[in-house]
Amino acid sequence: MKGQKLLITGAAGFTGRHAVHLFSAGGAEVTAVLRPPSIAGVLSSALFPEGVKVYHCDLSNRKAVAEMIKETTPEAVLHLAGNNSVPESWRNPLLYMETNVMATLYLLEAMRSLPASRILVVGSRLKFKPGVVAGPPHPYSLSKTIEELVSLAWGTLFKQPVLLAEPCNLIGPGPSTGFCSLLAQHIVRSEVHAGEEIPPFKLSSRHALRDFLDVRDAVRAYDLILREGINGTIYRIDSGTQRQLGDIAEQLISRSTTSVPMDWGPEQAARSILESGMAGDRLIPSDTSATPEENVSSLGWKPEIEFSQSLSDILEYCRANWEGRML
Amino acid sequence: MKGQKLLITGAAGFTGRHAVHLFSAGGAEVTAVLRPPSIAGVLSSALFPEGVKVYHCDLSNRKAVAEMIKETTPEAVLHLAGNNSVPESWRNPLLYMETNVMATLYLLEAMRSLPASRILVVGSRLKFKPGVVAGPPHPYSLSKTIEELVSLAWGTLFKQPVLLAEPCNLIGPGPSTGFCSLLAQHIVRSEVHAGEEIPPFKLSSRHALRDFLDVRDAVRAYDLILREGINGTIYRIDSGTQRQLGDIAEQLISRSTTSVPMDWGPEQAARSILESGMAGDRLIPSDTSATPEENVSSLGWKPEIEFSQSLSDILEYCRANWEGRML
Repeated sequence: MKGQKLLITGAAGFTGRHAVHLFSAGGAEVTAVLRPPSIAGVLSSALFPEGVKVYHCDLSNRKAVAEMIKETTPEAVLHLAGNNSVPESWRNPLLYMETNVMATLYLLEAMRSLPASRILVVGSRLKFKPGVVAGPPHPYSLSKTIEELVSLAWGTLFKQPVLLAEPCNLIGPGPSTGFCSLLAQHIVRSEVHAGEEIPPFKLSSRHALRDFLDVRDAVRAYDLILREGINGTIYRIDSGTQRQLGDIAEQLISRSTTSVPMDWGPEQAARSILESGMAGDRLIPSDTSATPEENVSSLGWKPEIEFSQSLSDILEYCRANWEGRML
Repeated sequence: MKGQKLLITGAAGFTGRHAVHLFSAGGAEVTAVLRPPSIAGVLSSALFPEGVKVYHCDLSNRKAVAEMIKETTPEAVLHLAGNNSVPESWRNPLLYMETNVMATLYLLEAMRSLPASRILVVGSRLKFKPGVVAGPPHPYSLSKTIEELVSLAWGTLFKQPVLLAEPCNLIGPGPSTGFCSLLAQHIVRSEVHAGEEIPPFKLSSRHALRDFLDVRDAVRAYDLILREGINGTIYRIDSGTQRQLGDIAEQLISRSTTSVPMDWGPEQAARSILESGMAGDRLIPSDTSATPEENVSSLGWKPEIEFSQSLSDILEYCRANWEGRML
């Protein structure tokens, strides 16, 4: 993307911060899109490398999105913004349809004025297959399913260069609310309060298998997809390795300088893959869909960061940011 | 629905007017939902039988929808409102997502406060099958596809009694913009301006086959579905007879009192079923979907109004309303 004008939405988020750094380091002219000034606004100058432009936009506001595209005329868009909490989606399902579906449509519609500019929409492995299963497991799944569907449809209807990415569970240093980061925070809390009584970290399904990938590897995949992906294709991004949550917990805890209070749950834990919001990998049967689905390895991508390195970096990030709690 | 509180959205529309009359005559306590005062508001007292309540609501306004449901506490909802012009959907695709998808969601979400109340959402045969075909033929198709999908999903997620209807091409007296009504208007114009030069009615595909059903028969089906349908089911409603547009034109013209200028198009017209917005019947392959799909005949419904009667009534309506042009 060297020399190209790239817009990154959701730039203050966990993946967004890494994306801004990687694309900026690669020579792209990055505009980081943030919500209208709030905490993110205050942080913005500290968050991003020099040369990165910051643009504040409420993506749920159709006019504001159109204005942003008119002003910034990006040659490519990495659309990371959206809401992604399964529990919150139960509490406010309409919000998820507004932020994950309509906001994406406002962006796609605005981008019709720049027909050569590519748009990479980051979907979710937690989508469901309409017509194949009776319904989504939660409103978040519904919103991401519809987001992908309308993005691909806009691409088809208006001949827009739209691409989709479906990452597995992303981990790494930064403000993540995923399993590894939550456990790392618990470890640092244990270190800070060594000798004091703190409640144990509860593992609900230590035997559950997940595919974890370093967020920096995922961002490299986004870069490759934006440069070399085939329009209208869904690219799956994963490490290819399934890991048990219990094993990961043991690896993280082995890096601790103190004892970490844990509730390991029952040895024979239920293995229901639907009980957790992170368990989407196997919701979707592989099939012969009318929409091309590829593994991003088809473009020559492979993970580069060792899993153990990711864990160390997560712990390091939590320790470094503990005082300010910028997690 | 005798004695039940029924809310009918889109009540000023072609199907809506017939629905208000039928349900009101059947003893339901009908509230007719119209857009905030405009022409429809002025017409409302003349449009509906005595005893029908009129409620003005912008269904694209989430708060207004919630307020309406709170005030009217319907025991059943017939959701007919929405936009349904294929050409307009190309000009303003986002409008179609807002009115056909988000407005329906606002209604479904508001109805969660009345968990026993049934909601019949009227979908379209012009939907497409995500995953089976690459994309929708037009934004209207996309919006109706997503409307059905989210309606069924809301029913599954929140255990709401949601039902779907998919009528074929509805015809009959009233303000329709369908083929039969447009041709009938042309015939009346020819009668009124007999002896003058008026441009011919152009048939673009006289050999195209369509399934037409009288709107009053469809409304009887909606009544049956609301009373006896199985929640979460899609009910197809059709006459079962495919008719050539050219034959229909000849039948209508034979009822004219004057000569009707026609451009019949080429004898060997292209039979593309995608060229017209009314041609959805065969877009959808029958399949074994996870969502139950039934013909409404499974509930004991069958059409009662002869096709020739529908044509006569359409022509009669156009003649009676020609002066005021309330078509």
